[in-house]
Amino acid sequence: MKIDVIISADDIKEEKIKGKSVVVIDILRATSVIVTAINNGCKKVIPVVNVEEAKDIAYKDRDLYLLGGERKALKIDGFDFSNSPLEYKADVVRDKIVVMTTTNGTRAIKRSSKAKNIIIGAMLNAKAVAKRLLEINNDVVIVNSGTYGQFSIDDFICTGYILSLLTESTNVELTDISTTALYIYQQNNDITSFIKYAKHYNVIKELGLFEDLKYCTTKDITNVVPEYRDGEITAL
Amino acid sequence: MKIDVIISADDIKEEKIKGKSVVVIDILRATSVIVTAINNGCKKVIPVVNVEEAKDIAYKDRDLYLLGGERKALKIDGFDFSNSPLEYKADVVRDKIVVMTTTNGTRAIKRSSKAKNIIIGAMLNAKAVAKRLLEINNDVVIVNSGTYGQFSIDDFICTGYILSLLTESTNVELTDISTTALYIYQQNNDITSFIKYAKHYNVIKELGLFEDLKYCTTKDITNVVPEYRDGEITAL
Repeated sequence: MKIDVIISADDIKEEKIKGKSVVVIDILRATSVIVTAINNGCKKVIPVVNVEEAKDIAYKDRDLYLLGGERKALKIDGFDFSNSPLEYKADVVRDKIVVMTTTNGTRAIKRSSKAKNIIIGAMLNAKAVAKRLLEINNDVVIVNSGTYGQFSIDDFICTGYILSLLTESTNVELTDISTTALYIYQQNNDITSFIKYAKHYNVIKELGLFEDLKYCTTKDITNVVPEYRDGEITAL
Repeated sequence: MKIDVIISADDIKEEKIKGKSVVVIDILRATSVIVTAINNGCKKVIPVVNVEEAKDIAYKDRDLYLLGGERKALKIDGFDFSNSPLEYKADVVRDKIVVMTTTNGTRAIKRSSKAKNIIIGAMLNAKAVAKRLLEINNDVVIVNSGTYGQFSIDDFICTGYILSLLTESTNVELTDISTTALYIYQQNNDITSFIKYAKHYNVIKELGLFEDLKYCTTKDITNVVPEYRDGEITAL
């Protein structure tokens, strides 16, 4: 199994992902939100790039659709939820459809559309994602959403964790960037010792969202593996 | 001083480097060749992208111009030198002009042309490069040439070394990718313990070029700081 890593949504190129199994990661916080919402019984998540596009979909049926996401890490005017996974509780998301727009994560998902499979990964479901990749047994590209087109340490260390799980279970051929992500994780498998250097982690911290940070950096609380297909994210 | 890192020649974008001081790194082996040639008395190095372009320049005066470079890490047909820095000895390069074409390094230099300064960096002159950056006192982007458009561990650890020197001497503001390069170097300041994981290091090793690897990973054997300006690389 060949495994490559793309370090930001801006760096996704069709030739790098075509026919591959892609895992999109944005642990702070889009993919943590998606995993949480699906785990809590949400029917599906529809990721869209623009706020207006999100509203157009949701306004068709405000009983069925929920609006979630962020701009500059804050809730969008007129939306039901911000980008905090802790808001997506079972009693509010069950049997609903979440329409979501975020700066980095939803963009990375949409830009990965030429991949064979597009799996939504986070610390929260990393083991389940690795298991799913082993079942598919295809070459893998782990797409780090990054932050505003930049490499982001938080996504990179989650990538390293998934790589460590795959490396334990199968023969892998790593690119240099994959090797580096694996090394960073192996040196910092408590996660927080390295993630504290991430600029975006500190942005969220400065907003006082300590519970979000604690939750989003927790390993393997669910076996749910959301997958993006034909514009929608559903559990397998 | 803000410091960013670009991880391959393919990822150079004008808006990331415009007005900045760029250091181009390709330690295996283009920038190690340039630093060595200039240190050994070569008048200038002219980096070009194509083999034919290189020959057109050199054939104007075969007594003055030397042809150097590689394709697939091997010497180009009709050229004087391969991409081994050990060939660029004082008795052959003194007062000559080297016309050079390589797969990654010369491309990274040419693609950086919108930067304010373009400095040629390697392990061989890292301390001198850091000193020059401190003199210029401008924001810095360290461009890793990478290998065939991919991130390359060898360039990344050299980047980490230069970052460690800057961090010791001035207040720096690091992006997440800079922080990661610095961390990798700090954990592996003997260089070889981490560089052995680099795919390109192993390509050179399989070609039997052990002396090249030893030389290119040696720190600070010269104070020469080559700079690219108007199509030519000369010592400052």
